[in-house]
Order: sequence, then C-alpha cells, then structure tokens
Amino acid sequence: MHIGMVGLGRMGANMARRLMDKNIGCVAYDPQADAVARLVADGAAGAGSLTELVAQLPRPRTVWLMVPAGLVDGVLDQLVPLLEADDTVIDGGNSCYHDDIRRAKTLAGRGIHYLDVGTSGGVHGRARGYCLMIGGAAEAVGRLEPVFAALSPGRDAASCTPGRGDGAGTADQGYLHCGPAGAGHFVKMVHNGIEYGIMQAYAEGFNLLRHANVGKVDHAATAETTPMRDPQHYQYDMDLPEIAELWRRGSVIGSWLLDLTARALQADPELDGFAGRVSDSGEGRWTLHAAIDEGVPVPVLSAALFERFQSRGNAEFANKVLSAMRKGFGGHEEPGTQTDRPA
Amino acid sequence: MHIGMVGLGRMGANMARRLMDKNIGCVAYDPQADAVARLVADGAAGAGSLTELVAQLPRPRTVWLMVPAGLVDGVLDQLVPLLEADDTVIDGGNSCYHDDIRRAKTLAGRGIHYLDVGTSGGVHGRARGYCLMIGGAAEAVGRLEPVFAALSPGRDAASCTPGRGDGAGTADQGYLHCGPAGAGHFVKMVHNGIEYGIMQAYAEGFNLLRHANVGKVDHAATAETTPMRDPQHYQYDMDLPEIAELWRRGSVIGSWLLDLTARALQADPELDGFAGRVSDSGEGRWTLHAAIDEGVPVPVLSAALFERFQSRGNAEFANKVLSAMRKGFGGHEEPGTQTDRPA
Amino acid sequence: MHIGMVGLGRMGANMARRLMDKNIGCVAYDPQADAVARLVADGAAGAGSLTELVAQLPRPRTVWLMVPAGLVDGVLDQLVPLLEADDTVIDGGNSCYHDDIRRAKTLAGRGIHYLDVGTSGGVHGRARGYCLMIGGAAEAVGRLEPVFAALSPGRDAASCTPGRGDGAGTADQGYLHCGPAGAGHFVKMVHNGIEYGIMQAYAEGFNLLRHANVGKVDHAATAETTPMRDPQHYQYDMDLPEIAELWRRGSVIGSWLLDLTARALQADPELDGFAGRVSDSGEGRWTLHAAIDEGVPVPVLSAALFERFQSRGNAEFANKVLSAMRKGFGGHEEPGTQTDRPA
Amino acid sequence: MHIGMVGLGRMGANMARRLMDKNIGCVAYDPQADAVARLVADGAAGAGSLTELVAQLPRPRTVWLMVPAGLVDGVLDQLVPLLEADDTVIDGGNSCYHDDIRRAKTLAGRGIHYLDVGTSGGVHGRARGYCLMIGGAAEAVGRLEPVFAALSPGRDAASCTPGRGDGAGTADQGYLHCGPAGAGHFVKMVHNGIEYGIMQAYAEGFNLLRHANVGKVDHAATAETTPMRDPQHYQYDMDLPEIAELWRRGSVIGSWLLDLTARALQADPELDGFAGRVSDSGEGRWTLHAAIDEGVPVPVLSAALFERFQSRGNAEFANKVLSAMRKGFGGHEEPGTQTDRPA
Repeated sequence: MHIGMVGLGRMGANMARRLMDKNIGCVAYDPQADAVARLVADGAAGAGSLTELVAQLPRPRTVWLMVPAGLVDGVLDQLVPLLEADDTVIDGGNSCYHDDIRRAKTLAGRGIHYLDVGTSGGVHGRARGYCLMIGGAAEAVGRLEPVFAALSPGRDAASCTPGRGDGAGTADQGYLHCGPAGAGHFVKMVHNGIEYGIMQAYAEGFNLLRHANVGKVDHAATAETTPMRDPQHYQYDMDLPEIAELWRRGSVIGSWLLDLTARALQADPELDGFAGRVSDSGEGRWTLHAAIDEGVPVPVLSAALFERFQSRGNAEFANKVLSAMRKGFGGHEEPGTQTDRPA
Repeated sequence: MHIGMVGLGRMGANMARRLMDKNIGCVAYDPQADAVARLVADGAAGAGSLTELVAQLPRPRTVWLMVPAGLVDGVLDQLVPLLEADDTVIDGGNSCYHDDIRRAKTLAGRGIHYLDVGTSGGVHGRARGYCLMIGGAAEAVGRLEPVFAALSPGRDAASCTPGRGDGAGTADQGYLHCGPAGAGHFVKMVHNGIEYGIMQAYAEGFNLLRHANVGKVDHAATAETTPMRDPQHYQYDMDLPEIAELWRRGSVIGSWLLDLTARALQADPELDGFAGRVSDSGEGRWTLHAAIDEGVPVPVLSAALFERFQSRGNAEFANKVLSAMRKGFGGHEEPGTQTDRPA
Repeated sequence: MHIGMVGLGRMGANMARRLMDKNIGCVAYDPQADAVARLVADGAAGAGSLTELVAQLPRPRTVWLMVPAGLVDGVLDQLVPLLEADDTVIDGGNSCYHDDIRRAKTLAGRGIHYLDVGTSGGVHGRARGYCLMIGGAAEAVGRLEPVFAALSPGRDAASCTPGRGDGAGTADQGYLHCGPAGAGHFVKMVHNGIEYGIMQAYAEGFNLLRHANVGKVDHAATAETTPMRDPQHYQYDMDLPEIAELWRRGSVIGSWLLDLTARALQADPELDGFAGRVSDSGEGRWTLHAAIDEGVPVPVLSAALFERFQSRGNAEFANKVLSAMRKGFGGHEEPGTQTDRPA
Repeated sequence: MHIGMVGLGRMGANMARRLMDKNIGCVAYDPQADAVARLVADGAAGAGSLTELVAQLPRPRTVWLMVPAGLVDGVLDQLVPLLEADDTVIDGGNSCYHDDIRRAKTLAGRGIHYLDVGTSGGVHGRARGYCLMIGGAAEAVGRLEPVFAALSPGRDAASCTPGRGDGAGTADQGYLHCGPAGAGHFVKMVHNGIEYGIMQAYAEGFNLLRHANVGKVDHAATAETTPMRDPQHYQYDMDLPEIAELWRRGSVIGSWLLDLTARALQADPELDGFAGRVSDSGEGRWTLHAAIDEGVPVPVLSAALFERFQSRGNAEFANKVLSAMRKGFGGHEEPGTQTDRPA
C-alpha cells in the first residue's frame, strides 16, 4: 500500500512517519524542500512537485492532503488535473464540511473519490495514534482501511466498553466511517467544539483557584464599588500545579487535556510564557453555525468560542459603549487600569 | 414635612433639591463641608454632624441615608444612638437586601423604623424624578407617602397602561411599597441586573455594527486561522451615531438607555474618551447570587456581569491556561498582539 | 406618488394605510382576496394578480414586498419579468441580507433597482410610524424619500439629541440610508438581535422576582440536593404587574418593551395564556452567524437565542446525556417531574 | 490505624471497604441498621449509635462523616459532645467550605481537629481509588496520611508528569493537603464546577450530532419562522454510540466522562431511560457564588449550571414573558407543542 502525503507540517510529517512505521509506503511533498528532505531521511520517497508525487504513486492513487483549510481548494486545482478516474483524494485537515460536500460532488464528476477525514491527535499523534473521523462513499473508505488502521491508535488504547461486541465495528480501533461526504469533518468539527468547551471549563476553574486569595487584598468602599462581603472566605493560596496533578488520579474530571495542563503548570506555574491571546482555528465557529442552523442550544460551546474572541480584544468597543452609558445615566467614571482583584 | 438627608453626592444632593422644590424641608449633612454649603445655598438647613442633623429634625424624625453601601453600617452605628422610638431611617443607597433584613430587625428592637428604598434615576433624577422601590413595614411607609410622591416622577411620566384603574396603587406615580424589609432593595437589585443585561445587548449590537467592515481586511490563511469564507458580506462602514438616533424613533428597541447611547455616540463617535474598563457596583453580583439560590437560570444577566469582569482583565489567567493547553496538544503558538479584525 | 404593496398581512396592510393617510396612493395585492378587499375599502386600488398590480402603477414603478422572508424569491421570480428598467423593488420584510446582496446584483443586470428596508414597529406601527433601515443605491433611495418620510415616525417621536444639528440627516425622522445593498437588513438584523437580548433581560428579571418566595417552600436535605442555606432571604411575594408599572417611570430601564410587558402583566398577571414556547424568526440566528464571522463576542445575544431554542424543547437530548453521565459516575437517579422550586 | 465511618451510602460504604482492604480497621455506623450489617459482613465493627461508635475507637479518635451536606451540622451536634481533645472529625461529603471554616473554628475551641476532605471518585472509587482534596491544620492532616494513602488511587493511576520529581509531594498519589480549613472543599467545589462544564460540553456536542439530520425535515415558510437556508448540509444520521467509542482513542477530548458516556450510549443509544431532568447537588452553585465574589468570569461554568435549572422547568415563566412581549409588539402567537426540529 502506498500513499502520497501533501503537506509536511506538524501533523502531516508525523502521520507519514507513523504510516511508514507500519509498512505503508509514502511519497512526500511540501513546498518547503527541507521538509521533504527530512521525511526522505526517514524513509519516504520525496517529490519536488505535485506532478512528481502523482507520477510516483501506483494506481489507483491515494493522495492525502494535510494542508491549512484555506489552501485546500488551491491545491486541488493543481492536483486534480493530474489524477485519473478511481484515484482518491483525502482531505485530512480542518476543512469546513460544506466544502467537502461541494468537492466530493465535483470530483465525482471526474470519477475521482474524495474522502474527508477529521484527524485528532495533535503533535502526540505519532506515538499515540490518530483518531480518524471519516466521511465519503463506502467503497472508497473500505479500500483504505489498512491506512486508517495504521494511523489510528488501535483497540488497546482504551478499555473495552461493556456490552460492546468485538466485531461491532472499527470505532474501537480509533477510526470510523461516519457517513457520506462531509460527515468526517462534521464529526471532527463537533469534536473541536467540545474541545473548546472542555478547555474553557478547566481554564475557568484554575482561574477561580488562582483568585481564591482575593480576600487578602484590601478593597475600599466607594460609590463605584461595593466592598467584599466575606473576605475571610477568600484567603487561600492554592498550589495550582499540584492540584492539576491531584485531579489526574481518581477524580471525575481526569482527561488527557488535564494531563497536558498539569505538564504546563509544572513547567511554568504562573504561565508567564503566555500572553493569554487565544486563537481559534475555524471548527469552533462552524460548530456554532451548525448549532444555529439546527436550532440546538449550545451555551457552553458558544461561551468558549466567545472567550477566545474576547482574549484577542474584540469586545473593546462594546465595553466602551457600556462605559459611555454608565457615564450618561450615573456620571460614573471608569476605574483605573489595574485589575481590580490581583491574584 | 421635614427630612434629614445624609450623604450629598451625585444622588443625595439632587434628591434633597427635588424635595425642597416640592416644599419638603431638608436638613443636610455630609462629611464634606462644601457639599453641605452648596445645599444650604439652595435652601437646606445645614448640619455639621449627625448630632446637629438629628437635633434640627422635628419628631418623629426621618433620616434618609444616601451613602455608599459599604458605609451604611458605620453611619448607622453613629446615628441610631441619637434617635428615639418611632423615628425612621431610610437607606436609599444600593445596599444588599440581606443587610436590610438584618438592620430592620435590629432597629425594630429599639422601636425605630427602617425602610429600604431602591432609587433609580441617576444624575437626571432631579428633573425626571426618581423611581422608588420601597421595602419595610406598611405603617412607616404610609407616613412618608408625601416624601415618596415628591421624589417620584408622577403619573404623567408615562402613558396609562390599558385596563389599569386610576386608583389601583401608587406604581403609576413612580413609587411602590414592594413588601417587607429588603423588598425594596431586592426589586432594585433585579432592576439593576436587568439594566446590565439591556446595556450589554446594546453594546454587543453596536460592536457588531462597528465590525461590519471586517471583510475589507485581508486575512491570510495559516494553520492557526481559517480565512474568512464570505468577505463580501462584511463590507459595510456603518454610521453608528446615526443608527442609534434612528432606532430611537418607532423601533421596538427604543429606550432611555438608547437615548443616552445616542447622545454619547453623537458627542464622541469612536468613544475614544473611554478605555472600556467597566465597573460593577454590587447589584449585578447580588442578582446573580439570588438567581443561584432560587434555581432560576439567568444566562443573559450573568453574561452581562461576566463581561464587566472580563473588561477589567480578570480572565487573563484563564486565557493563559487555554494557550498553554493549545501549545501542549498542538504545538500552537499565540498570535501577535494586534486584534485580529480591526474595525 | 404611488406604490404597489404586495403582501397585506399584519405589517403590509397597516403600512399601506399609513401611506394613504399621508396621500401616497397604493395599489394592493395579496393572494388572499379578502385582504385586498379590506384595503380597497380603506382607499387602495386593488389588484387580483401581480400583473394587474404592475399595470396600475405609473412608471417608474415602485413595488414594496411585505411577505415572509422565505417567499420573497418566489415572488420576485414572478414579478421581475413584469417590470422594466428603472423600476424599483423594495423588500421590506425580514430577509437575510445575504439574499439582498445577491438580488440587488441580479436585478441591476436588468436595470431594476432593489432596496432592502428593515422595518420595525410591529402592529403599532400604523399609529407610531415605522423605523426604516434602508440599504441600496443612493439614487433609488433618494427618489423614494417621500415614501420613507410618510412611513416613519417623524422628528417629534423622540426628543432631540443634544449637539445634533437639525440638518444632520434623516435618522431623527426615523429612516436612514444605512449603506449599499444589504445594509438595511443588516442593521435590522442587529436591531432584532438586540431586541432578543433586551427581551431576555426583562424575562429573566421578572422570573427572578416571581421566584423570590422560594424560601417559603420546604426543601428536604438529600444526597441529591442541598438544602437552601438562607430561606429567610426568599420570602417575598412580589406583585409583578405593579413592579412593571413602577419601572416605567423614572427608572433607568424604561423602554417600549417594558410598556408592553406592563400591559401583558396587567391583563394576565400569571401569563396563563402562554405556554412559554418562544419562536425565533431568523434575524436572531443571522445576527449570531454575523458575530461569529466577525469574531465579535456576543454572549448576551447568543444566550437570548439559545433560550428560545430551549423553550421549544431542543435541549432535551443534551439533558439526557447529562443524566446518563451522572448515573454513570455517581449512581444518581433523576428527580421527579415537579419543578424543584415552585413559585 | 482505626477509623469510624458515619454514613454508609454509596460513597461511605465503599470507602470503608477500601480502607479495610488496606488493613485499616473500620467502625461503621448508619441510622439504617441493614447498611451497618452489610459492612459488618465485610469485616467492619458495627455500631448501633454514635455513642457506640465513639466507644469502640482508640484514642485519639478519627471519625469520618460521609453524610449529605445538609445533615452534617446535626450529626456534629450529637457527635462532638462524645469526643475529646485531640480527636479528629473529617467531613468527607459535599459541604460548603463556608461551613468548614465555621466548624473548624468551633471545634478548635474544644481541642478537636476538623478536616474537610473533598472526595471524588463516585461509585467506581472502591476499585479506582478516591481523589482526596484536604483542608485543615497540617498536624491533623499529617497524622492521617496512612488513611489518605489507602483511599487514594496511588501513583500508578496516571503517568508521570515530566519534570515533576518523585518526592515533590503527595498529589501524584491522589491526595493533597490544599490549605487551611475549607481549602479541601473549596478545591472539590471548583472540581465539580469544572465537571459540570465538561459534562455540558459533551452533552451539547452529542445533541448537535443527533440533530445533524434536521435538513431531512420539511420546514414550511411562514411569517413566524424562516425556512432552513441549506438543508443539504444537515442530512447526516450519526451513530452516536460509535462516535463516543471512537473519540475514546487518540482524540484530544478523551476522558473518563467520555468513557462513561460511551457506556451509557452503548446500553441505550436513544437514552430513553432518562427524562432529561438534571439535578445539581450544591457545588456548582457555590462555585458560581465564589466566582462572583472573586470577580472572575465563568461563562461556561455558569451556563452549565443554568442548563440544569432549565432542564427542571425553572425558566418557564421567563419564557412566558417573552411570548407575551412578542404578542404585544408583533401580534405573534406561540407555535404548537411539537419540537420544531425533531431528530
């Protein structure tokens, strides 16, 4: 089995390496020649262009794209004319599933299969395996099962769910054909929406712990603010790295994201290495778009997304409107620039 | 009818003036002598101390406190020993109603009446009148009806509600006995909770209008961000002062808060005079405490309060936790310091 | 000046009547013949079809559509072939502004002007006037100023904003050219988004007041629930109709929506005539879509929309997932079917 | 080492069993005699009253309370007079940390140690071990380390956090002295607040997946609702049990709560066994109270709590207010009783 891997960034390069570890041949291409060279050193065949990549693949070809969502259509414009009927293109990046529906239809017109494969696992995926959420026609999916099986973590990565038979499907190996075109990225999109919510839950909790000493700060009583009613309730200097470590064992909220948080806090207890400006990569937005269309309330997933917008300063004008109103009805002036309750 | 006014800040001084305009005598006290002097110039009797204030009031005395919530108990400690049975103390500030319940009980032990009067109207109240939400024993409330009637806006301040008889109560004059001790500040607390929510709704809406031109900004496609799907939908340069003015006439969202917003935007279209750090004075917090105790969901009132916490930088550590997790699982670096979508 | 009005429902019929009151001639069409007959009785020329409507209008023609957003494209398919270059079509309904951008472009190809006019005012608009938010090319807008002026509330509908000159524009008459195609419906969309937020703020506040007596209910202490800590704080039986009436005078939260709430509570204090299933008509959803695209946090506007989804039962499965998890980790059974804290 | 266990419900009985498994002697008491009998059969010494329990314990005594939070003070009233100086009482239930601060002070007056130990692990704790968050004086904590070590999961329950030395503290064994009185329940409170947020994130995500087929439903266009713009995007019939299974392997959102969700969906894919009425046991509320006092924004934790209030019908009156307003300004009637978008 051979596969062409296009895009050798953090995800693509390691996926190719995992495939090769499992004896699946890789032809690798990236616009950055040194990225190709590094993968060739690890055993891949290198390609200096999409044309070269296609030429080196046995038919029917399989080309896996692992490029930023915004670049996929441009790559397809170049790649598709080089392909033939019965070849398969996989978009393993973070495309919006709307695009998958459109692309699958277009490529089907040329007899080319298009699969959308939401891929989770991050930089740890080479070792842990990748969780694969697959959309597209069943035939094309079936043909590539060895590839999916090689990339995914396998059955031992988690305990058996009671009552689930061994032959019940591939989900317990870490990959699943979720439905027709777009279904893979739809499930990945919701996955990332959930991820935002879980991350925000932890972040809020640790922030609460960090400010558990606010009762030690002296708060003056003014017309603008009210004094703290019970400062004796907020006298705790919490050890955040140790609490993160603690919760990893036996608690209801243990998770891989908590493991990562414990590591980060262990290395930098104040997280001084971060400014607190949080990106969002698209799926959180699309999740919310989908919820609106479905009429499904998602108060937590939306709050998590909006927090990221907030962290980048995008509420500033709204806040100015609030201050302007307060001045208008009450003559209130804004407070100074320090946070009101430093930790 | 005479009243002693303690606290001559933005609210207290104008309330005293409105009372005097309606022929209710005022004895005025404030720790700041010049505040007293200004009110004496407007016709009040001045007092240099609480003792002097009490001495100048006819019995049974009425003393109206208009001081920051955090100072009320201190003032009461000094004032109450000077009073006699059947005197009345009114807390017209923004006390937490828990304190009213406690104080009313304590003062009742000395035969002194305690009323809590939530007062809305802000700096415009002298001209418009004050909306008064009153808690306490019926007898003490009844005795002071002339005072409440003088302070409140009166029946002409709004149209008649169809079906409501003329003698149905005092609410249509702008004051209402809401219930026993604490009821006045409870209603005022909820009033302010609603106020936060309404303000935030406008603020978010104007922020949305202000960013309606984001499609004009060029967004690069990277692994960290996704390009804007439909920039042609966000090409509008909206005239915010004019839109605020527009909505004041005939729209469903007309309100006094919108009138104030229109004024602020007219004077300073970019609101450059504000930094966007928004205070909260207690009632929004207590509203949320009450909702939690009642088991009543208040997603909008809480979001409005949290936005104010946000505006003062109190989410910073939470955001750092998010960035730390993103680096942990995906190797993501934080974006630069500019807002991603400047207006 | 003449106008063709297509769609004679709650909004369209009254708008035609207001126009005729101001001496603008109306040709009226609706698929329901009795709706046409009623308007003919009020002075309109009636039309039995779009063809008849077009035939009765002087050139260049103006046709105002006041039909459900989902039907506009179908009406345009029939209407446009009947029109000629320099005619104008106005969509005064609640279309998504995306459609306006598309339609304006299509109709421009035939030399036909297309304006999108967000219209606020509801069933009271005939008397109060309509607030008009207009998008489209300046020339077509200018030609119809007499129509917009007749429909809008006029300058006296609200006080002057200090510092705003008399000749500063039309916003103080209640209509405004907001920008190119789609700008009118964009502003109306945000207007409705704000409306949702304001409504929800009031709704939450009144719900809090209504449950202010929960301390009177006896709460048993079980492993599943915790007893109320301070029942003495929740002993108030609030008079909601009177509180709504009160807040209409002198308070910071006075508004037209509050006036309407006071009326509804006066007529039906328990609101027994309602089931609490709340529709949303599209703009709230589009507002949220726009906020996501703009990267602007809208926690209040989204919470208001999600509450409507909630009210229609759309969170049910999510809640079942929560219950299933609670049973999974804690053996918790669901509580009975009564609300936990009846008012 | 001996311990007295008071309260033999789901948690207490299994904790006693785990202690006995590790050779720590237990004297067991519960008002329900059969609960005591069952534990005696497993090797505990039984007590028919608190007096009997105290009599059987070696001095200095250790009594661990595992009773509903609302009953702790009542038990203490009976228990404390039976104890002597240097004895220790542990509250291992879900008390509010405010109560711990108060109780620790009171008991210190008698020379009795009071520890608050937040305990996570649920019904699986006997096998997995319990995560223990401990508050109180260091001396009393140190003396009971063997007990905490026996109850907690131990170091092997999770991988080592890189960079954390072996002797860095006890957190990696699953128990931690978090600070003075109340600190244990404070950390447990925040833990449960996070738990609510994480659960809600999953619940919303699965609800979104379940409604991914709404495009198959026919939606009529009316003035009250807008038709779905892109029904072709919502044609997916997702297999929820398999998706839950899938995400357990290699994905970023793997967690123990997801494991439990997968089990529940495997056993009952539609979750028909649940009504969707979700309890909250106190900590979620206290977490929110603490956040308000600290001035820390917790949009996700609050949304999760409010969803539970919602699920029990507590927003009903708020929704009626919304419907009443809609009728007031727009003449809108409420929709029928079916959910608008059945899955």
